Amino acid sequence: MLISCITSCGKCDYCRKAMYSHCRAGGWVLGHTIDGTQAQFVRIPQADSSLYRLPPGVGEDAAVMLSDIFPTALECGVLNGRIQPADQVAIVGAGPIGLAAVLTAQFYSPARIIVADRDANRLRVARELGATDLVDVGTGRAADAIRTLSGGEGVDVAIEAVGIPETFDLCQSVVAPGGRVANVGVHGRPVSLRLETLWAHNVTITTRLVDTACTPMLLKLVASGRLQPARLATHRFRLSDAMRAYDTFGDAARERALKVVLEKD
Amino acid sequence: MLISCITSCGKCDYCRKAMYSHCRAGGWVLGHTIDGTQAQFVRIPQADSSLYRLPPGVGEDAAVMLSDIFPTALECGVLNGRIQPADQVAIVGAGPIGLAAVLTAQFYSPARIIVADRDANRLRVARELGATDLVDVGTGRAADAIRTLSGGEGVDVAIEAVGIPETFDLCQSVVAPGGRVANVGVHGRPVSLRLETLWAHNVTITTRLVDTACTPMLLKLVASGRLQPARLATHRFRLSDAMRAYDTFGDAARERALKVVLEKD
Amino acid sequence: MLISCITSCGKCDYCRKAMYSHCRAGGWVLGHTIDGTQAQFVRIPQADSSLYRLPPGVGEDAAVMLSDIFPTALECGVLNGRIQPADQVAIVGAGPIGLAAVLTAQFYSPARIIVADRDANRLRVARELGATDLVDVGTGRAADAIRTLSGGEGVDVAIEAVGIPETFDLCQSVVAPGGRVANVGVHGRPVSLRLETLWAHNVTITTRLVDTACTPMLLKLVASGRLQPARLATHRFRLSDAMRAYDTFGDAARERALKVVLEKD
Amino acid sequence: MLISCITSCGKCDYCRKAMYSHCRAGGWVLGHTIDGTQAQFVRIPQADSSLYRLPPGVGEDAAVMLSDIFPTALECGVLNGRIQPADQVAIVGAGPIGLAAVLTAQFYSPARIIVADRDANRLRVARELGATDLVDVGTGRAADAIRTLSGGEGVDVAIEAVGIPETFDLCQSVVAPGGRVANVGVHGRPVSLRLETLWAHNVTITTRLVDTACTPMLLKLVASGRLQPARLATHRFRLSDAMRAYDTFGDAARERALKVVLEKD
Repeated sequence: MLISCITSCGKCDYCRKAMYSHCRAGGWVLGHTIDGTQAQFVRIPQADSSLYRLPPGVGEDAAVMLSDIFPTALECGVLNGRIQPADQVAIVGAGPIGLAAVLTAQFYSPARIIVADRDANRLRVARELGATDLVDVGTGRAADAIRTLSGGEGVDVAIEAVGIPETFDLCQSVVAPGGRVANVGVHGRPVSLRLETLWAHNVTITTRLVDTACTPMLLKLVASGRLQPARLATHRFRLSDAMRAYDTFGDAARERALKVVLEKD
Repeated sequence: MLISCITSCGKCDYCRKAMYSHCRAGGWVLGHTIDGTQAQFVRIPQADSSLYRLPPGVGEDAAVMLSDIFPTALECGVLNGRIQPADQVAIVGAGPIGLAAVLTAQFYSPARIIVADRDANRLRVARELGATDLVDVGTGRAADAIRTLSGGEGVDVAIEAVGIPETFDLCQSVVAPGGRVANVGVHGRPVSLRLETLWAHNVTITTRLVDTACTPMLLKLVASGRLQPARLATHRFRLSDAMRAYDTFGDAARERALKVVLEKD
Repeated sequence: MLISCITSCGKCDYCRKAMYSHCRAGGWVLGHTIDGTQAQFVRIPQADSSLYRLPPGVGEDAAVMLSDIFPTALECGVLNGRIQPADQVAIVGAGPIGLAAVLTAQFYSPARIIVADRDANRLRVARELGATDLVDVGTGRAADAIRTLSGGEGVDVAIEAVGIPETFDLCQSVVAPGGRVANVGVHGRPVSLRLETLWAHNVTITTRLVDTACTPMLLKLVASGRLQPARLATHRFRLSDAMRAYDTFGDAARERALKVVLEKD
Repeated sequence: MLISCITSCGKCDYCRKAMYSHCRAGGWVLGHTIDGTQAQFVRIPQADSSLYRLPPGVGEDAAVMLSDIFPTALECGVLNGRIQPADQVAIVGAGPIGLAAVLTAQFYSPARIIVADRDANRLRVARELGATDLVDVGTGRAADAIRTLSGGEGVDVAIEAVGIPETFDLCQSVVAPGGRVANVGVHGRPVSLRLETLWAHNVTITTRLVDTACTPMLLKLVASGRLQPARLATHRFRLSDAMRAYDTFGDAARERALKVVLEKD
């Protein structure tokens, strides 16, 4: 059984629009307004409409990835960015969400997937997962590099997968006229939106708390073999070893950790 | 003949996407990179694809309104805002563009059209043209007023038709989860985008330099009697009197001027 | 309380796509697989997700019209037909559903609404409700008449609101290249689809059992005063007089009956 | 230089909607209303908007495939069928167009691509190009086989790539509720449309003469290496040998011919 990170009642006005993130009787509940699910047994609210049976061929490792990060990358990044075949896409941030965006962006056959980050290991993983071009943001010239890679005019879609003003700024700096900036990152501060130039650039900027409306689609893609989400699982620990798992995740760069899976004892 | 404010070649990659504003051999040319059209005779570049024959029943007064302000209000405001029947809409700014948005928003039957401005006369005109609710932004409590009118959660669509940080901020303050902020105003400075709250609100923000791709649609709506754009023409002058026309427009609030039409001598 | 004609569980795959007509635990149940609702008291299955509270200002007369015929006309006809501002629309059949299509088509501001029927009274009502042009199908020259009215090339949208091969044929005969044929009628036999010409005409043909997904939108439009569905109620009877109501409806043409409302004793 | 099979002026109302197939000064002209292009030199009408420069990395073999069959398969089949990730797709007919649909359908990551034909060699090629399941229509049980493969309810998208009543009927027999039938085939006769069941199945049926509006997208996908259209070229002849080329194509099944390329002497 897959436990969605978003709880939905299926009946309220938001649920009727598949905007489960804002469900009147749910939304982002697990790990936010009540405890999360790192336990042997959990009681899930609105279970009838917030759990998904695993189809044959979908293992638990895949399922745990589909609970949150893959719907987030797909909905907030890829779908909101309206990636079309032959598009040029920049993904800023190669953490687990950014890497899940690299994988799910390919559902729509972009011509180019540029990934920008400052961690050489994560950039290497991005390449393995399908990125066509890598940009080191540590150089301070990432915007120029992305523009040059895209042929000068900028990218069709820029996905912000970090959550700080600098990375949002990079996205708005490299989007082509007519393009989309899809924000995925969780932000703690306002950002400066360059309307003095963007007002005339026909761009679209989107935000979204994941709705997990695409979970059934993702389950089918895993079952058919077109998506291997477990590729992002780098470490595994027993539940009784949870503190070590947190330490590993807390030092992710040095441990080369992407997603850490906890298993029942 | 209607002269579009946007020049398009019909052949380049942007024109093929109906994004004429960025035409490789045109775009915003008239009154920008060459002189405008306040003259007895003008030579229009890319004339084959930048002029429109007037259908029977469309007068020159209507046509001049369809050259720029109505496509701008419709494309940048109403279409980018994806107004749907029963939506609640806030239009911030009741100048000619904002008022044209009031008229064209009604093509999609919103349940409520709230107009915010500080000019009592313009608010009165907005009401005549179809606004259901008026908000005086001079009170400093416009955001609260709009939220209350919308039932508490905010509006589905907020149209920014002024071009300063304060009015953009009003728009982002009143948009409901899942809503759209459609920027129409020409901005001279960056604005502060409140991503620290909006990241989770599933909103869409759009910008656009008018493409005038909807000019044929507007011409048909005028010909069928469903749109009377000349209602925005408050003053008329002969071309030889152009300086007086500019003076009138320069003191628009006191003159209660919306659009000033220049006629051939 | 509004009882939707379609029962939906809100949880199954079809409900998640707002295709309630095919709900795994509901769909078209009332009056089809169980008895309907002409009673003092009824028990509604899946009530949590199949009933709608009436907002202030929406009377019971309006609500009963929104249970079935208005969602049907809007979803199967207007929305499936993708009516856009300035479109030319032909509605074939001026029964209650066709007339509800006349009213709801106007949500999208078509330039022309041509209504075709053989009943002079219904055509007269269509005109009152917003039809711009009337065609008597009894003449046998309806296709020519519609083509001429549309300027020669045919209409953008043809709505079939009868359910027999002749009226479907009329629709496919008058649709312009790029246009849509939206079937609303309940058919009992196959129809002949003229693919030998239509294959190259870029047309779209749609069918749909009403999902009543637009019921919330319709309720808001009634509450805001933009829709008066009760205009289709021509007769009223007490429940104890139901047989007379059926007689009236059974002789609808002579009685000039559109919708007959039953009231509690 | 790529010569599009469709001639477009870029200025008329149809061209403005990217519906070049119906261009007022073009459309399907080459090989239809004037001679085609099997010659050393040809004069192309409306050349400014009907020719495409080849980007680096796109050879002439690829270009000739992009002139007609790939835009046809993509626009009339894949795009009109609105294939989404995880969809189940049936492609009826494994001629060059059907096979091009197999390749271009993968731009949108369907979970299953079922190809139906009666020619064992073509089915084998379909498998090589990405079909997941093959159905021999010679058995007379193709509909049952496709339904079973799709899990019982039918496919999301059925693409008709033959052009006879039997294959259209197969498509309408296997489409699931909510699904799309995209007609690609050139038909010479009407077909029987089973509205007596389909009226309630929420299906969409589309037709289209190729517009070649997606040619720029296809060129980019070839340049980026994501599409190898020349895989469909099975035979090559010099122009002086054109009659032999026609003989080969005329006996395509025995010659295992898909597309035959003519080269300059």
